[in-house]
Amino acid sequence: MAEERIRVNAEKLKKLAARELESLGVPKNDAAITADVLVTADLRGVETHGIVSLVPFYIRGIQAGRINPKPDIKVSGTNLSTATVDGDKGLGYAVTYRAMKEAISRAQETGVGFVSVGNSTHFGPGFYYAMMALEYDMIGFTLTCSPVAEVVAPGSNTVSVGTNPLAIAAPANKKPPFVLDMATSVVATGKFRKAILEGKSVPEGWAIDKEGKPITDPSKRTLDNGGILPLGGTPELGEYKGFGLGVAVDILTSVLSGYAPAVLRRTKEVSHLAGALRISSFTAVDTFKNLMDEMIEAYDALPKLPGVKNIYIAGSYEAEVQKDREANGIPLLPQVIQTLKEAAGELGVEFDL
Amino acid sequence: MAEERIRVNAEKLKKLAARELESLGVPKNDAAITADVLVTADLRGVETHGIVSLVPFYIRGIQAGRINPKPDIKVSGTNLSTATVDGDKGLGYAVTYRAMKEAISRAQETGVGFVSVGNSTHFGPGFYYAMMALEYDMIGFTLTCSPVAEVVAPGSNTVSVGTNPLAIAAPANKKPPFVLDMATSVVATGKFRKAILEGKSVPEGWAIDKEGKPITDPSKRTLDNGGILPLGGTPELGEYKGFGLGVAVDILTSVLSGYAPAVLRRTKEVSHLAGALRISSFTAVDTFKNLMDEMIEAYDALPKLPGVKNIYIAGSYEAEVQKDREANGIPLLPQVIQTLKEAAGELGVEFDL
Repeated sequence: MAEERIRVNAEKLKKLAARELESLGVPKNDAAITADVLVTADLRGVETHGIVSLVPFYIRGIQAGRINPKPDIKVSGTNLSTATVDGDKGLGYAVTYRAMKEAISRAQETGVGFVSVGNSTHFGPGFYYAMMALEYDMIGFTLTCSPVAEVVAPGSNTVSVGTNPLAIAAPANKKPPFVLDMATSVVATGKFRKAILEGKSVPEGWAIDKEGKPITDPSKRTLDNGGILPLGGTPELGEYKGFGLGVAVDILTSVLSGYAPAVLRRTKEVSHLAGALRISSFTAVDTFKNLMDEMIEAYDALPKLPGVKNIYIAGSYEAEVQKDREANGIPLLPQVIQTLKEAAGELGVEFDL
Repeated sequence: MAEERIRVNAEKLKKLAARELESLGVPKNDAAITADVLVTADLRGVETHGIVSLVPFYIRGIQAGRINPKPDIKVSGTNLSTATVDGDKGLGYAVTYRAMKEAISRAQETGVGFVSVGNSTHFGPGFYYAMMALEYDMIGFTLTCSPVAEVVAPGSNTVSVGTNPLAIAAPANKKPPFVLDMATSVVATGKFRKAILEGKSVPEGWAIDKEGKPITDPSKRTLDNGGILPLGGTPELGEYKGFGLGVAVDILTSVLSGYAPAVLRRTKEVSHLAGALRISSFTAVDTFKNLMDEMIEAYDALPKLPGVKNIYIAGSYEAEVQKDREANGIPLLPQVIQTLKEAAGELGVEFDL
């Protein structure tokens, strides 16, 4: 089933996505931000969070009334280093962009900024917002709770916590930045969808069923049958750590925004946390960035196990992919292009890729 | 080899530890803090970081000149929400206590405080400092790099990163607080020492040798032969996540303090980061704490796998242990008591347990 992919220009793809969103009433700026986040995910090879989601999740979400195209995003907070954002059920992309800008602006003043976000929706790839801090010589943090619990607690056979990802970005000098973006579960939900589409089984250790036995047929994992395992996977290999991180993300997003975490099953809104630490508030920016370069070079030079070509720290591989795709286009599956084309027809906007 | 443990009163144990440290020139306050941290680890069942370490690591460390008993701890920083601490190679306990107090005081003013700590030494159990934020209705964070790299990067057979633990604490209302304290590797180094002492093997998935094969004989893991695996353990089960977290801790401790991370093998000093978020800066404290209680109760009530009695969120089991040990004493191994007694004799202080 290996279909030929077609290389598409990133800038044209962004413009198409923005046109489709604008046609639904999304303000020009918010549409441009959302398009930029989605296409940046594709540029960096994070395809599960790329343009493939535009039509099924966001365009359909706006049409169905789950997402508010013209939110009244409220930023408040009288403390110098913090703020709270009410997302008014707007696109999580535009809401989180706004929150991260606010965190950066607070960090410029005081050294640190943390902004909680409630009443939002899915924000896509967290790394994008964490990376917004880089050009200001800051370390960026983004956390989000998942809309639905899909992960089991150690000892339970019932989903209680989301895959709750966290992202951290830190700048280097000549080397690409450190960019970690990870679900706190063994794998993100998208990996099961991908396996189902490809007709493949999944490894033991990703999920268990109601009896606690491993699920290898990805279609067997449903919200009523077991769930995804926390990072670590088994008691012996530290699953309490992945679970603890998942609960910590719920605390720092939902609870800190005054919303019930997933285990209470009464909140549909999604909450986030955006943070920034200004490096110059701790040490000289040059010292920091040069140490980052040296660190990354030392990892490059480590002895490798047989068959291993490169040792990557988080963000390095993605930077390689981005370089190629910015030059040569993003390889999209024909059916993804077809879906975008059909949506353009339906929405009455120009299709030009 | 199951030796009978002897229950010892926590307050008497703290006083003995403090006397021994004071006899070496540690100021009264610093000695009391260090004793409190060590004994609190024992009270909460975290014995690897308890009083067992006092004589071999800290008393011998001071005597050998590795730890400065009377450091000139310098706190500086003109930004409102941040500070930097130079620990002057003092006991990491007293240094980090000071840093966390500073983070809390900044968070009282601006909503957030983050304090980087360089030129310090081992600080013991990170949860203690994170928990200092609780009584101020704040969420506490503590990170530390390890003194030595003992963990391999994915694809390498050579240690390059420490077990680099992180701790997060958040208050509840009637329920015990959420307290996560975890190495970013599959297991902490102490687990190998424990297995060697007990003559036991370790599970596959904890460490690999130079050829990439699993180590199950704990004495085979040396700094020249493979290393501990990052949390996740294998590429398929997400080891890049544990590795990414470990590198993030190096960035947020060593690099942010201007010191070289472990992979560069030129820094012996230990660096930390202490942070606090004031809850009232984001949402009403009552709302937050009541949601925490409800969340913990919901986890208590989850369906359990056969044979599982309780589902614990991080910190709940430790709170149960602490209640018992505060009432009935800390069960110590006779040889631990003997070591403390011999040190008291050697240092010329009263032995009274």
